[in-house]
Amino acid sequence: MEIGVAYYPEHEKSEQWPIDYKKLQEAGIPTIRIAEFAWSTLEPEDGQYNWTWLDESIEFAAEFGIGVVLCTPTACPPIWLVEKYPDVLPVHKSGKTVGFGARQHRSYYSANYLAYSKRIVSLMAERYGQHPNVIAWQLDNEFGGETKYDYSEYAKQAFQQYLADKYGTIAHLNQAWGTVFWSQQYQTWAQIPLPVPIQSDVMMWPHPSLELEFARFSSQGLVQFARMQERVLRPHIGERPITTNGFMFCWGDNINWVEMFATLDVVGMDIYSDKPHEIAFYSDASRSVLNKPFWMMEYGAGAGQLERDMRIIEERGCERFFLFKMKPFPWGQEQGRGGKELLTLTGEPSHNYNVIQRYTEAATTKVEDEFQTEATVGLYYHFDSSWSYQISVSDRLPYANYVVDNVYRSLFEMNKQVDVVYTPRQIKAYELLILPLNIMYEAELEEALIAYVHNGGKLVVTTDLFRKNDSNVFLTEVPKLFRVLFDWQANNFVTDVVDITQPIVLEHETGRGKSWLIARDISSEEWREVIERISGAI
Amino acid sequence: MEIGVAYYPEHEKSEQWPIDYKKLQEAGIPTIRIAEFAWSTLEPEDGQYNWTWLDESIEFAAEFGIGVVLCTPTACPPIWLVEKYPDVLPVHKSGKTVGFGARQHRSYYSANYLAYSKRIVSLMAERYGQHPNVIAWQLDNEFGGETKYDYSEYAKQAFQQYLADKYGTIAHLNQAWGTVFWSQQYQTWAQIPLPVPIQSDVMMWPHPSLELEFARFSSQGLVQFARMQERVLRPHIGERPITTNGFMFCWGDNINWVEMFATLDVVGMDIYSDKPHEIAFYSDASRSVLNKPFWMMEYGAGAGQLERDMRIIEERGCERFFLFKMKPFPWGQEQGRGGKELLTLTGEPSHNYNVIQRYTEAATTKVEDEFQTEATVGLYYHFDSSWSYQISVSDRLPYANYVVDNVYRSLFEMNKQVDVVYTPRQIKAYELLILPLNIMYEAELEEALIAYVHNGGKLVVTTDLFRKNDSNVFLTEVPKLFRVLFDWQANNFVTDVVDITQPIVLEHETGRGKSWLIARDISSEEWREVIERISGAI
Amino acid sequence: MEIGVAYYPEHEKSEQWPIDYKKLQEAGIPTIRIAEFAWSTLEPEDGQYNWTWLDESIEFAAEFGIGVVLCTPTACPPIWLVEKYPDVLPVHKSGKTVGFGARQHRSYYSANYLAYSKRIVSLMAERYGQHPNVIAWQLDNEFGGETKYDYSEYAKQAFQQYLADKYGTIAHLNQAWGTVFWSQQYQTWAQIPLPVPIQSDVMMWPHPSLELEFARFSSQGLVQFARMQERVLRPHIGERPITTNGFMFCWGDNINWVEMFATLDVVGMDIYSDKPHEIAFYSDASRSVLNKPFWMMEYGAGAGQLERDMRIIEERGCERFFLFKMKPFPWGQEQGRGGKELLTLTGEPSHNYNVIQRYTEAATTKVEDEFQTEATVGLYYHFDSSWSYQISVSDRLPYANYVVDNVYRSLFEMNKQVDVVYTPRQIKAYELLILPLNIMYEAELEEALIAYVHNGGKLVVTTDLFRKNDSNVFLTEVPKLFRVLFDWQANNFVTDVVDITQPIVLEHETGRGKSWLIARDISSEEWREVIERISGAI
Repeated sequence: MEIGVAYYPEHEKSEQWPIDYKKLQEAGIPTIRIAEFAWSTLEPEDGQYNWTWLDESIEFAAEFGIGVVLCTPTACPPIWLVEKYPDVLPVHKSGKTVGFGARQHRSYYSANYLAYSKRIVSLMAERYGQHPNVIAWQLDNEFGGETKYDYSEYAKQAFQQYLADKYGTIAHLNQAWGTVFWSQQYQTWAQIPLPVPIQSDVMMWPHPSLELEFARFSSQGLVQFARMQERVLRPHIGERPITTNGFMFCWGDNINWVEMFATLDVVGMDIYSDKPHEIAFYSDASRSVLNKPFWMMEYGAGAGQLERDMRIIEERGCERFFLFKMKPFPWGQEQGRGGKELLTLTGEPSHNYNVIQRYTEAATTKVEDEFQTEATVGLYYHFDSSWSYQISVSDRLPYANYVVDNVYRSLFEMNKQVDVVYTPRQIKAYELLILPLNIMYEAELEEALIAYVHNGGKLVVTTDLFRKNDSNVFLTEVPKLFRVLFDWQANNFVTDVVDITQPIVLEHETGRGKSWLIARDISSEEWREVIERISGAI
Repeated sequence: MEIGVAYYPEHEKSEQWPIDYKKLQEAGIPTIRIAEFAWSTLEPEDGQYNWTWLDESIEFAAEFGIGVVLCTPTACPPIWLVEKYPDVLPVHKSGKTVGFGARQHRSYYSANYLAYSKRIVSLMAERYGQHPNVIAWQLDNEFGGETKYDYSEYAKQAFQQYLADKYGTIAHLNQAWGTVFWSQQYQTWAQIPLPVPIQSDVMMWPHPSLELEFARFSSQGLVQFARMQERVLRPHIGERPITTNGFMFCWGDNINWVEMFATLDVVGMDIYSDKPHEIAFYSDASRSVLNKPFWMMEYGAGAGQLERDMRIIEERGCERFFLFKMKPFPWGQEQGRGGKELLTLTGEPSHNYNVIQRYTEAATTKVEDEFQTEATVGLYYHFDSSWSYQISVSDRLPYANYVVDNVYRSLFEMNKQVDVVYTPRQIKAYELLILPLNIMYEAELEEALIAYVHNGGKLVVTTDLFRKNDSNVFLTEVPKLFRVLFDWQANNFVTDVVDITQPIVLEHETGRGKSWLIARDISSEEWREVIERISGAI
Repeated sequence: MEIGVAYYPEHEKSEQWPIDYKKLQEAGIPTIRIAEFAWSTLEPEDGQYNWTWLDESIEFAAEFGIGVVLCTPTACPPIWLVEKYPDVLPVHKSGKTVGFGARQHRSYYSANYLAYSKRIVSLMAERYGQHPNVIAWQLDNEFGGETKYDYSEYAKQAFQQYLADKYGTIAHLNQAWGTVFWSQQYQTWAQIPLPVPIQSDVMMWPHPSLELEFARFSSQGLVQFARMQERVLRPHIGERPITTNGFMFCWGDNINWVEMFATLDVVGMDIYSDKPHEIAFYSDASRSVLNKPFWMMEYGAGAGQLERDMRIIEERGCERFFLFKMKPFPWGQEQGRGGKELLTLTGEPSHNYNVIQRYTEAATTKVEDEFQTEATVGLYYHFDSSWSYQISVSDRLPYANYVVDNVYRSLFEMNKQVDVVYTPRQIKAYELLILPLNIMYEAELEEALIAYVHNGGKLVVTTDLFRKNDSNVFLTEVPKLFRVLFDWQANNFVTDVVDITQPIVLEHETGRGKSWLIARDISSEEWREVIERISGAI
């Protein structure tokens, strides 16, 4: 894979650029990722631009054979924009406006923010779109990091419109959500609040259907913002790929990354972890979104076992591998005394600088030519189910941790090649397909699972499979999958009548295929035994 | 005792009612409790009513021999009311208005809320007051649950008036509270704030006298709201009893339930517990309020040992026993996958459905004819003392837990029959009377205790007895009880001069009576030994 | 040392004063500290004063040979002032205004608060400045206790002015802080916010340079308020000393006490601790500020080992020792059942009353005549470093605990005499000088340390020495001290290249002097070994 690194030319005097580029050249690093937080340097006043430093730093890089991934700087609206249009700032669920002075202080529902974002992206696209040394584009930075949710008045109106578009009539929404419970029935869209804390004396929480729809809406708001930037860039950049750097899965809650990357060219991801199985999971998860090699946009340059981690990542289809970052920040919120970068604070090479240098000297082939997966296991990751568990008060579960630590870890340690599967259409003829915690029912998925087993596949699901509908409401009829795949005839859900003392609650063969129903609350160790037993049975 | 269950006809299509009623009939359940959260279904728009569903569900029930306890729906003001009069919503101590979208979002000090509540209760009283199938009325739901305290402007004015009524002059209040401390002296009633968080950099808290009065005021506000509803109902309902479903003692803090039930006809209570001694305590506590059989308004239908629990409750004087609830809620804040109801989500009987069926088949007598208590032990529960400890910063104690777990549990496990005693007038010729944590002084209580011992009773008190006056201020003179019952002559409180290393600090005989002073901070095990020793001494 | 006690004549009827003074006289207590919270009693209405009680209580005291330390009452603005000028109240970082009803509810940036404070202090100075029985003055109470930080609009403007004065141009501030990071560049002073919580969905925090400057500014605001009071008092009080009662070091964060006491006459401190080494440290720290005997303004009258503690304190140069307090408060936020005072709630002498009585009977000499320190060890305490660590998110350390528990404790238990050193000018020819956690670089300090070692001193520093500059930004060049004292030639900080597995990372002799570089993160036990080894080497 090709190595790159995050670099901030705006942090340096221009004399420093050739010194730094020389250091990269010597380490065999042919790519830098730049400008992701540089809005205030590019546009220091409303409509006044300073392109010189960016022009020159890109040109200088070319002289050292260093290509540039150019980032749009929209994660950091400058002070003049915030001051002129305070609605640029989003509102926290506490009711307080997010303050200027960090990053991601922007509302995706502010027309002013959208217009100014569009303008700076347009100008960058026009100026650098055809630049021979700009090899790719990154949209924004870590969408959904600091501010995924926005509780502003504009966000509320957009959410109400989202609901109106989805449910058609308020009566339909009332019916779907069961607002008859506790007299929560709405009469107009404008009455529907955002799911802010209820503020009662004892613990009380918003309606779970409202919560789930707001999670979906908030993910969609981010995706639409990315789409806007994509539409601006495409006409100017030719074949250059567009990605973004997703901070996947772990950041408090999730964006639906499948929707985010649906029209982008390559999946980019950031990961900070020192656990091999976690690094492996997120690599597999990234490749699987578009089922093609992915880019690691940020990987900690201070990793304790960088060679090991790079091997894990490369084996799973990483095409470009960007370290974060070239230098320590002496100031600002991410200031540090160094050690997590390629250089020290005084500018000397770090331990991992040498690791990278050795890697680039040894590398002779390109990953695209070599890479092929032969995944025999599919592991289903379902964003709606993840959100449903995250929202739940009486039955909250850490969905991502469960998938990664209870299920994937065993597969990783058994050296299974794994695809992460996100949609029914991605289901292939795996030897084994596992759906942990897939609490949300989808008819298309039900059909796909039945077909998969009928075609001879081995299917593992947990006892909470298909308990809730699209509005986060419990089903009151047992889905047909249980009858078809488990020969389950009772007019009761399995857990209503079967005492769950064994990890495997039900198992049933259907032709050459077979299905297992696993008790949801078993431990990581029990999952390992289950997977070993079922794998042995394959 | 007669079995009932919470049912929500407004959650169902009318075709479902006879199916459900049949299930109840088959289980021998002759009573349902309905309509407690149905305001928006009864009055979907301001002044527009929909009685049909309620008329019919009551009529249908009659056909199956099922009587109805009808609840007033005031715990859930509809969205149109909140939208029209935002002052309906109470304000949390954080300063934020409680949001629509759960329950108990109502200010007892909002004239609009009171007027609309009165109107819906009046209309229900007129329509159903004489209905032959309505056997009793429940006011609202779990008073003081989500919102006991209200920090709104209207609440503040009402509180200031409460203080003016109680203290007469601001000088008297300043004197009683000791506002000379830290220059907190007030000049006018309007200057007195609600006890909101102080917001200093380090922990600081409101004045303890202000806090205690606000706890009293807030309890009183709930009681007055219940009285209003009672006054509306009485002229229309004949001899039908009125109750409410108290969530006694445990819900964060307490209402003075003795005041709440003083004019009602029967004590109703909700309890969710799986500890036998706790179930027993709250049963004894409920019966003792009015010293007559009580109603269990909500008991978890999913209880693991329902038969055992029912026996404990019945033995202590429960007349009607309502399970919560017939069916799982698929949606809303209390949604669940089932298991805690009489039916499963698919409508099939649960385990406890069969438990109830067996119970009703075996039951041949009515509790009213059988029931009699012969309590030999009185256990004092003092709401003001409970609040004083709850408010305390430097000496906070979980009053209710102490009473229940440290003291009552031993009595329960020794098979003592216990009355809970709330007022001096309720003190009878018990063999043993225990007052744990009775930190608040009351002259009438002091006289009653002296008389009790003089008449031969055995009295157990803790070392914190009678340390504070009605304004939550420490006494500076030792009350005479110590001299009279313990022959205590020193001009010091006992704990100032006696080293407390033994559980029993003092014991003293007065004629045939005897008094014990117990170290407050002893453990549950030491309490058991103390009670065993004193009981042996009886 | 001379004993005193906090007394509150305004809490008593005047008949009580002679009774109380007699009790003090009998215990040999010749001093009371009064009036610190008495504003509302002295000025019950705007411009209406009641001096009688204070006149008389001072006069009465004189009759019993009891001198008075008179306190300014500015920590408790009365309700009428708050009502008239709401800007008197400071704003918490939550954005909520601090409420009336406790203490320290005052903004040092409110012109109204300043004017009214000045007036009451002026009137007291005029009335009591020359009173023969007033022996000293205390300013306010525990500056920086409940409210050091103020996030009001006035505070913001003052902070912006502070920054303008310090940095000159906004470009200089942007440069110094590195606001290019994340596009945080400011254009005008008015754009700079206070470091309030950022309110993002995941943890995010304000800029560390902004935070440090706000800590400095907030300390300075308190010092300027004290100066104002000092200026008012001086013309009226002759030679009477002025102090204040600092709650040193522990109260959440620190004021720069060296600046606070720079122009005052004596260092006064409050301490509540039962750990001998902590009591000793704060005593040494207090004496060292002005390098002369100090006053203990509040020491807990309920201390479990009062004689031991008094010996520790006296040995370290305490001249006056005030107990807190004579009597329990029955009401208010500090109400209690007694035991921590000289009298019980009923007015009887407590255990420690007798301890004090024995002490005063035995004392025959005055500390001023006896006292001399021969400190051989200097321990550096650096307020800016303390704040930098307190602000840090990724590398937060409890600076004061580290200094006291990891370093000072060993010195104390080895019976070393210790000066606490705050400024380069205070460095003397100690045998040993220790600077733990001195992360902030100061050129003057660097020179002083070099000179100290060149003159034969032994110097101990930690690996984080001099890593950050005055703006809380990491240095990118190694300070010359490392080359000069450790012969460190590398263009890297030590921790970038030396593996820190031993407590002593570097040691180097320079003539007769010697320097040790200690791994910052060693334990308390390792510090003991290091100090023993180095002391042995002396």
